[in-house]
Amino acid sequence: MQLPSIDRAAQEPIRRQIYTQFKVQIASGAMPAGEALPSTRQLAGELSVSRSTVVEAYDMLLSEGYLSSRQGAQTVVADGLVLDAPSLPSEPDPPRKRTPVLADFSTGRPDLEQFPRALWGRLLANAALGLPPEQYGYTGPQGYAPLRQEIVAWLSRSRGLAVNAADVFITAGATHALHILAELLCPAGGRVLMEDPCHSGLFDILSGSNREIVPISVDDHGMQADLLGSAGQVSMIYVTPSHQFPLGGILPASRRAALVRFARERGAFIVEDDYDSEFRYEGAPVAPLYSMDPQRVIYVGTFSKTLFPALRIGFAILPKCLQARWRELRTHYDVQNPPFEQAALAEMLQTRRFDRHIRAMRSRYGRRRQTLLDELTREFGNTWVACGDAAGLHVAIRFLGRRFDDAFQSRCRENGVLAVPLETHCLVKGLHEDTLVLGYGHLEPERIGPAVRQLRLLMDA
Amino acid sequence: MQLPSIDRAAQEPIRRQIYTQFKVQIASGAMPAGEALPSTRQLAGELSVSRSTVVEAYDMLLSEGYLSSRQGAQTVVADGLVLDAPSLPSEPDPPRKRTPVLADFSTGRPDLEQFPRALWGRLLANAALGLPPEQYGYTGPQGYAPLRQEIVAWLSRSRGLAVNAADVFITAGATHALHILAELLCPAGGRVLMEDPCHSGLFDILSGSNREIVPISVDDHGMQADLLGSAGQVSMIYVTPSHQFPLGGILPASRRAALVRFARERGAFIVEDDYDSEFRYEGAPVAPLYSMDPQRVIYVGTFSKTLFPALRIGFAILPKCLQARWRELRTHYDVQNPPFEQAALAEMLQTRRFDRHIRAMRSRYGRRRQTLLDELTREFGNTWVACGDAAGLHVAIRFLGRRFDDAFQSRCRENGVLAVPLETHCLVKGLHEDTLVLGYGHLEPERIGPAVRQLRLLMDA
Repeated sequence: MQLPSIDRAAQEPIRRQIYTQFKVQIASGAMPAGEALPSTRQLAGELSVSRSTVVEAYDMLLSEGYLSSRQGAQTVVADGLVLDAPSLPSEPDPPRKRTPVLADFSTGRPDLEQFPRALWGRLLANAALGLPPEQYGYTGPQGYAPLRQEIVAWLSRSRGLAVNAADVFITAGATHALHILAELLCPAGGRVLMEDPCHSGLFDILSGSNREIVPISVDDHGMQADLLGSAGQVSMIYVTPSHQFPLGGILPASRRAALVRFARERGAFIVEDDYDSEFRYEGAPVAPLYSMDPQRVIYVGTFSKTLFPALRIGFAILPKCLQARWRELRTHYDVQNPPFEQAALAEMLQTRRFDRHIRAMRSRYGRRRQTLLDELTREFGNTWVACGDAAGLHVAIRFLGRRFDDAFQSRCRENGVLAVPLETHCLVKGLHEDTLVLGYGHLEPERIGPAVRQLRLLMDA
Repeated sequence: MQLPSIDRAAQEPIRRQIYTQFKVQIASGAMPAGEALPSTRQLAGELSVSRSTVVEAYDMLLSEGYLSSRQGAQTVVADGLVLDAPSLPSEPDPPRKRTPVLADFSTGRPDLEQFPRALWGRLLANAALGLPPEQYGYTGPQGYAPLRQEIVAWLSRSRGLAVNAADVFITAGATHALHILAELLCPAGGRVLMEDPCHSGLFDILSGSNREIVPISVDDHGMQADLLGSAGQVSMIYVTPSHQFPLGGILPASRRAALVRFARERGAFIVEDDYDSEFRYEGAPVAPLYSMDPQRVIYVGTFSKTLFPALRIGFAILPKCLQARWRELRTHYDVQNPPFEQAALAEMLQTRRFDRHIRAMRSRYGRRRQTLLDELTREFGNTWVACGDAAGLHVAIRFLGRRFDDAFQSRCRENGVLAVPLETHCLVKGLHEDTLVLGYGHLEPERIGPAVRQLRLLMDA
């Protein structure tokens, strides 16, 4: 045994210094099992510390089982404590080198500068003060009731959708809703039918638990419903009918009807991801597929695009038959959302500040879209075609005669150009090699021209 | 075709009334495929609305594919749109009858009345204003860096733990951490070793994806490490070594060393759930198992008990080898936490308001624990024994010679007494039938006496 060395200048209390140094000696075997410790009086004297300090250190070691003592007997080191080479915490990561970004065409990024942060802060503070104490406790997996009511009202005034608030389940965003739905609809390796191309991240979200992904090819009008016949048995069908990601098509009514008929025949559920259809620049928002069959279609919405991604609020509208299992899964996964963002968002919806924000952003994004198309014309003449409906925060552009391969992607990375080839989002490869997906929502107008020029330089390199 | 009937007093815009009524007629077959619509001029005249209103309604129906029109030809109903009996949204749920709660011994409930909600509101508002716009976007799955730093500092000053902030991963609470860890450590039906008894919800959290649960019996000193030898191959070991739930034992150092040796031999990881050890009423907090082997033990912490459950912030400390896969899983499950609570909590930790809150609550909860034990003595004399260490927000009480069966639980439900038999938390049944788990953290002192009397009345009934 080595006497503990006391550092009186250290932040660590002296009792913990004694405790730690004995513990290290015991774990390393330097103080073997059965070795007697000095009495508390004796050690206090030798270290010139108060006896109560030593008593506290011994009590910690006793209560954690490093020492044992019997009535009237000496305090000794307990049995079975030596561990070979106890491992250490990891070293800090080396700092990463970052390439400066010269052109950022990331998709799904709203303009964060325009979000009214001061208003949001007030709404959060009001929520914290206004929510009763019980809302700080466990309130169940379905979400804050006033927010569910306000979402129902918003869906009615923005899309003419008739929904019961009892069927709305708040989530931590659309990804979270899809993660739960995949487990709910295909618990053990079922088959999931997806659009191809679709967002590249979705494959990872939906393919967990050994699920098989069945791609159905997409054209300018969304999923090709005439290909459904060959799909075999499926449990879940994922679609983006209002604004197909990434090609931008609107699923026509006849394909919608065919899809609903198919789902009914197979006993499958359709998951409708309405990720950005608030931002439609010509005409009213498209009516959701949900209205065709609320018992067969699960509508998933998110506020990541309309407000901001870090909000982490989305929702799913579920038929009654799925609600009990959803509650169980949500409770086991992550229990519930925090209440503050939910209450602040409910207030924003109720006062129509949300609607005003959407209107302002829609006209802003519409102008950016037009600026992007104008700059593409300036740089590329008429050698390109914009795919899909004029909506959302991105557009897929076919550059006639070009081919965006792995070498192009490497050049993008090296040169700080964030532009994703459509092929990245394809399950079946080789059909869309001439197309890039360009996000513009977050780009201030004056950055769009330079970004497009940067892109052309890279394409011509 | 039936002419749309216009309600000029309705909130729904007239263009949408026209659109909806045509859509319903098309879906039901009342307007069959190929039927020609009146011209926009003609319909506007018949309905006495402006022609542009009718044009907008037709445009919506055209863009969604309910109608089709060819250059110069009439607008007609599109093909393939009839759906049998479109289903309706669900009816509202009938209101549930609730039994008034007379005695609430729920576990894991901190006192929400004592939480400084006004301070919290200010911290949230400061966070909303102070966070730069990019923090409103996607910021990655690991969590807010200043919070991770503050958690490291807190673990050092409260438990003497040396941790690198790069190894801390923020979660939406401990349940969320355990859900991710189960998938990470046993992706396809591995075996999970658990304490028995343990929290009843954990079985559901950990047993997903066909995982097999292996119970290891618990005594007054936590998991019985001498039973590990018969456990076979396991991937994940779940323990609560600082304050076993629900029996309250502290795992002694010799069992800790045996557990670490076992995990090393089997290549398994130990998940240490430190859910409430801040509240220890005699002596310093117990040192985490993590310090014995940071490459083999994953430490999971939560702020649900120290602050409030709806906060939804917890964390896991991960060895480097698990971090890349964790990032992937978190991104596919729910992306990230919102930033506001994280920044507010970081501020609370940095200013030590958190430490002050813990100190105040510890002495408050300690008094409540004592009041509960006093009231038990008053009502039950010396016919009961408190299990485990004096810590946390609950205590398991053995009532000598009693038996808490299903009939008792029914009586509890019918009479508004929330008291959970220990058997509810047992995987192997029949060993703890004389024990109740009583939560006291949320109970004001004046409610404890009446609650204990209510319990005795029910037990004697």
